[in-house]
Amino acid sequence: MTGPALHPDVAHLACLLGVWRGKGSGIYPTIESFDYLEEVTIGHVGKPFLAYSQKTRHAETDLPLHAETGYLRPVGSDRVELVIAQPTGIVELHEGVFHPADGGGSLAFVSTSVQLTATARPVEHVTRSITVDADVMSYHVDMAAVGEPLQRHLTAQLQR
Amino acid sequence: MTGPALHPDVAHLACLLGVWRGKGSGIYPTIESFDYLEEVTIGHVGKPFLAYSQKTRHAETDLPLHAETGYLRPVGSDRVELVIAQPTGIVELHEGVFHPADGGGSLAFVSTSVQLTATARPVEHVTRSITVDADVMSYHVDMAAVGEPLQRHLTAQLQR
Repeated sequence: MTGPALHPDVAHLACLLGVWRGKGSGIYPTIESFDYLEEVTIGHVGKPFLAYSQKTRHAETDLPLHAETGYLRPVGSDRVELVIAQPTGIVELHEGVFHPADGGGSLAFVSTSVQLTATARPVEHVTRSITVDADVMSYHVDMAAVGEPLQRHLTAQLQR
Repeated sequence: MTGPALHPDVAHLACLLGVWRGKGSGIYPTIESFDYLEEVTIGHVGKPFLAYSQKTRHAETDLPLHAETGYLRPVGSDRVELVIAQPTGIVELHEGVFHPADGGGSLAFVSTSVQLTATARPVEHVTRSITVDADVMSYHVDMAAVGEPLQRHLTAQLQR
């Protein structure tokens, strides 16, 4: 693929770029556990941010489940801001820390603001942890929502 | 194109669906005016929301300018919620009203929340107006930002 050169401000996050596919599982006290198939795309247009989008399908019925879309904004070499919009009427703003590693790195995000439309289900707080090791991305998402304390909600492992 | 059937809850917004391309112009007291080329994509996956994404390029240099991405969530036949994430570190939540018209309709959105990452430029309030008449989409965006009162920022006309 040809395209614009990677902006130097995001060069240290190049390990995230690509189309990632794999499987995940979701749990929460208020719902039935579920397995999902996922595709994550992280790209760039030559500017100092990365574009992020994600879609999941139910592992058994193949019906679309969740989706979300947003952007990562590096601030220096170790901080990363993340903004995400979701079709559930939720937007998340996160502050994160990037730790480089051989052949990859990890990102740990903590939400600084979770905002809801009038009809969205109440989500109060979210943390997101992403690790890239060569061509494997693993992540988990913890969530405090619908009155429940912060706890594991999603775990997935994807291949580039 | 084949794909899932449109969810009945978004059927009245079908006039928005498609890939829209055209030109726009941006003004604001604090910046130099500019013209841009734009591509807007509005799609669906068979669920009761529409996915929205947008990219602009500078009309003269062809370099990428803005981008944004999010979702429209109809609530009944006349209300629409809108969530948008921007690479500038800004997320917008809007409440909107849909007015159907022959061969299209119009949407008027008013932001209920504009949230910023730590390094984003301050935007306080946004209104967005979108009109579809057959295969023409026109919109304008008004913005209160960086201490300036709410005023026209963007105007564009696109073709499906």
